[in-house]
Amino acid sequence: PPSLRLAVVPGDGIGTEVVEQGLLVLEQALRGTGTTVTTTDFDLGARRWHATGQTLTDEDLAAIRGHDAILLGAIGDPGVPSGVLERGLLLRLRFALDHYVNLRPGKLFPGVTSPLAAPGEVDFVVVREGTEGPYVGNGGAIRVGTPHEVANEVSVNTAFGVERVVRDAFARAAARPRKKLTLVHKHNVLVHAGHLWRRTVDAVNAEFPDVTVDYLHVDAATIFLVTNPSRFDVIVTDNLFGDILTDLAAAITGGIGLAASANINPDRTAPSMFEPVHGSAPDIAGQGKADPTATVLSVAMLLDHLGLPDAAARVEAAVAADLAERGTAGRVRSTAEVGAELAARVAG
Amino acid sequence: PPSLRLAVVPGDGIGTEVVEQGLLVLEQALRGTGTTVTTTDFDLGARRWHATGQTLTDEDLAAIRGHDAILLGAIGDPGVPSGVLERGLLLRLRFALDHYVNLRPGKLFPGVTSPLAAPGEVDFVVVREGTEGPYVGNGGAIRVGTPHEVANEVSVNTAFGVERVVRDAFARAAARPRKKLTLVHKHNVLVHAGHLWRRTVDAVNAEFPDVTVDYLHVDAATIFLVTNPSRFDVIVTDNLFGDILTDLAAAITGGIGLAASANINPDRTAPSMFEPVHGSAPDIAGQGKADPTATVLSVAMLLDHLGLPDAAARVEAAVAADLAERGTAGRVRSTAEVGAELAARVAG
Ligand SMILES: CC(C)[C@H](C(=O)O)[C@@H](O)C(=O)O
Ligand SMILES: CC(C)[C@H](C(=O)O)[C@@H](O)C(=O)O
Repeated sequence: PPSLRLAVVPGDGIGTEVVEQGLLVLEQALRGTGTTVTTTDFDLGARRWHATGQTLTDEDLAAIRGHDAILLGAIGDPGVPSGVLERGLLLRLRFALDHYVNLRPGKLFPGVTSPLAAPGEVDFVVVREGTEGPYVGNGGAIRVGTPHEVANEVSVNTAFGVERVVRDAFARAAARPRKKLTLVHKHNVLVHAGHLWRRTVDAVNAEFPDVTVDYLHVDAATIFLVTNPSRFDVIVTDNLFGDILTDLAAAITGGIGLAASANINPDRTAPSMFEPVHGSAPDIAGQGKADPTATVLSVAMLLDHLGLPDAAARVEAAVAADLAERGTAGRVRSTAEVGAELAARVAG
Repeated sequence: PPSLRLAVVPGDGIGTEVVEQGLLVLEQALRGTGTTVTTTDFDLGARRWHATGQTLTDEDLAAIRGHDAILLGAIGDPGVPSGVLERGLLLRLRFALDHYVNLRPGKLFPGVTSPLAAPGEVDFVVVREGTEGPYVGNGGAIRVGTPHEVANEVSVNTAFGVERVVRDAFARAAARPRKKLTLVHKHNVLVHAGHLWRRTVDAVNAEFPDVTVDYLHVDAATIFLVTNPSRFDVIVTDNLFGDILTDLAAAITGGIGLAASANINPDRTAPSMFEPVHGSAPDIAGQGKADPTATVLSVAMLLDHLGLPDAAARVEAAVAADLAERGTAGRVRSTAEVGAELAARVAG
């Protein structure tokens, strides 16, 4: 788009700090592309909830829909009861805007220290389903607080929902050099959902005959993520397994300070959302200590999604160059310093 | 018991090989304790299923109930459809015999190589709930194989079931030097089940005031397992999260070749079951390559459960000594060689 209308949700804690830097880098990346950006800030998150009791109103949602994309920092503070903002705001956005592809790269950049002794080359992407599974909020409880309480959580999986994300994952695998797709589930225990996922992967494989497919139970997948992460190219999995695997993936590739994510609506019926995997980190908020790199890499994913792959590549290259030199830096830089250096590299 | 009636389920693949060694070590460990062992072999697993279509009959189950404990090797081969033996045999045993405490130590023995660059001292235990959660088989599907298929899986959590395993975990934490209990769940998304777990931990904490409690979301727990596993002492969690965390725990402490587990019925209304975490490993079956150490450590857990802590300690010490020397061994030993050396060390 010649003019990119970006909804910005800085959120809470370090969210506001990292988003500021992400926007600086975005501006530099767009220079010379013919695309300009106009941003609308949305005051959503813990602050708003404390002040008004609101998480995300229908008006907020309608206004956000009028944008081409969303950049989100982080949401939450310890004063908000667990689940209120996660379900009322973050997951509501993902569900309402049909972000069925939650994309999370697991890439170990040169110069970054992994907690693994011999990580090897790590460069995979997790395609996490974003609108189904145990995240749908179909649970409930009876006799709460009594010795006879029963609390259920329901994982809902549909052919419609599984097929569209599996097809997206195959397309991504087909476009990568190794062309490999790993389905992660637990079909020996969760047989109904598991068999739907398996059958769907087998069926869609016929459309992508050059993609090699394998399968891992989720427990085995965590083993390979620490013993042989190089074996992974594209992983496709459900909402909950994807949540777990992507945090582990972030850990082995340098931590959630570097982990980017995209909540994508591939049909483009609503704006997609780009956010770092990390949270609002109240313990370090307001101190200029947060690493904006995950947000900047999320900005690269945003540019890619908007059809600006060159700009995206410039941002990723800036991050790669910065990370390669970090070990030699000698001192810890502030959020603003890292952002400024990345922006300067992109302007390059 | 002066005479220990042990039900033995060697199972398939390497299961039979490792159980043989486990029994040798058990015999040595019981010498001089006044306890003798009589074993009954149960032909259960893939072989039996291929031959008869049976997984576990009511007669099998009744016969097993007449024993003091069960030693299980591993179950399954690629020819059996996914889920048949897992649900029809393995999980049926755990559920029917009310194995509500699934105990899995995560211990890095000196001399064992971890895939982590700097694991530090790792010595925790996961108390995994064994009779509830998404493992109950309460899922179902409609319109299977059509574009309108819906496949649900239900996680069932009861106050009764959560409280008893949480109390067991507190008791274990109270008996350990660090006295620390970490609840792992995902209560910001799975709010109903999550809140039941949280409330239960808070309530039972009152009975164990000297135990320190903290909480981690399951995704964050996987991060800490690779960045700071020393932070864990006792982890309590549900059936599915426990499945995932314990495979990861095994990976960071030297692999599933070393990971022991106990499926315990603390009320002793039915025999408890001891089994290595690994599977039947058809790829290496029959070659004498399997490491029996996980089974031998499961035998130590069996001895402990039977009230023979000294014998248990001798077995664990034998394993520790063997592992400490492994790096210097120079060659890979066979299953029988490792078993024989461990038995000899226990015999002292
Ligand atoms: C905050 C929480 C709801 C969220 C999730 O579980 O999806 C987070 O962990 C993530 O991975 O983006
Ligand atoms: C085989 C399978 C049913 C089992 C489980 O998921 O519990 C296994 O992975 C385990 O951890 O013992």
